[in-house]
Amino acid sequence: MTDDHKTKMQAMQKAHREKVAEAQDPGRGLVLIHTGNGKGKSSSAFGVIVRALGWKKTVGVVQFIKGSWITGERQFFQRLGGIDWHTMGEGFTWDTQDRERDIAAAVAAFDRACEMMESGDYDLIVLDEINIALRYEYLSPEQVLDGLKRRSDRTSVILTGRDAPALLCDYADLVTEMTEVKHPYKAGIKAQRGVDF
Amino acid sequence: MTDDHKTKMQAMQKAHREKVAEAQDPGRGLVLIHTGNGKGKSSSAFGVIVRALGWKKTVGVVQFIKGSWITGERQFFQRLGGIDWHTMGEGFTWDTQDRERDIAAAVAAFDRACEMMESGDYDLIVLDEINIALRYEYLSPEQVLDGLKRRSDRTSVILTGRDAPALLCDYADLVTEMTEVKHPYKAGIKAQRGVDF
Repeated sequence: MTDDHKTKMQAMQKAHREKVAEAQDPGRGLVLIHTGNGKGKSSSAFGVIVRALGWKKTVGVVQFIKGSWITGERQFFQRLGGIDWHTMGEGFTWDTQDRERDIAAAVAAFDRACEMMESGDYDLIVLDEINIALRYEYLSPEQVLDGLKRRSDRTSVILTGRDAPALLCDYADLVTEMTEVKHPYKAGIKAQRGVDF
Repeated sequence: MTDDHKTKMQAMQKAHREKVAEAQDPGRGLVLIHTGNGKGKSSSAFGVIVRALGWKKTVGVVQFIKGSWITGERQFFQRLGGIDWHTMGEGFTWDTQDRERDIAAAVAAFDRACEMMESGDYDLIVLDEINIALRYEYLSPEQVLDGLKRRSDRTSVILTGRDAPALLCDYADLVTEMTEVKHPYKAGIKAQRGVDF
């Protein structure tokens, strides 16, 4: 055991304890954005849900895409129960091929999200792939910003999807960009159930 | 409904269907690395676990740090059951302040990970924060590469932690870098239970 190592580890331990002590104070709910062209934007949000549930927090999810796509996370959380989970119905985007219907579906889903954010019933709400709805201009950044601003103080919100608009990134407390450094599909490897969706 | 929108949506739907159809073929287990100085490396791995469990896959976790740190994800998955979860005992790193003991603990945890990877019992194994053990030179990249190469064909492995070594990135099928664009601690906002740990 070197003194150098011991000193470093003690400093790390002290910093960690302070972080945990500070964390006892709930503070105001945060707005987090997961964006970028890499993987992990949605899965990281689902990991945060797991954390929140571990601490017995209340969680809501509104998914803005993949209406008819059966995903592992949806099956898991539906079997688990205890999460208020809304996936945009009627096969949004993949199935309708009708821009007006897509807009109506996105707006309806966002209205539901706004009710949830304002209600004060949730510690964490995930707006999964909402940036896609923004990219297609089904929703406007101003509209989403307004909804976020009117959220309950207790509620943290995670927005996922590539191309997060600058207006929302400016407002967010945390923006994480997932960058694809090396991707298996490009190397001819297929998407895998249980890993990729 | 514009023809342009319809054509675009049809193309997207076709690409999606092909991806799902291809995904019926399980293929070989992948090696995925989540690295970078941003958040989401571990939480994204926990999100992939949720996906895997949603498809009734078998999952194992070996955590290479945070031995005495109670996290939301650990509480959640321990309550849930059905996951083979190992956290390095004896307060690794944060508590021992003894480099020799830290190395012994890391090596013991990696031996367990190797047994799991070779066993053929798992669809997915997460080696959480193993890159930290590599950064402190408790494990060598060559040793970890050798363990990965001897994994069962059915087993995908996710390695998390900043500063993933180049040797492992070269071998991995997918490397995602999580980059911190904007961080709440820097803006004076405290770490929050249920979001950050």
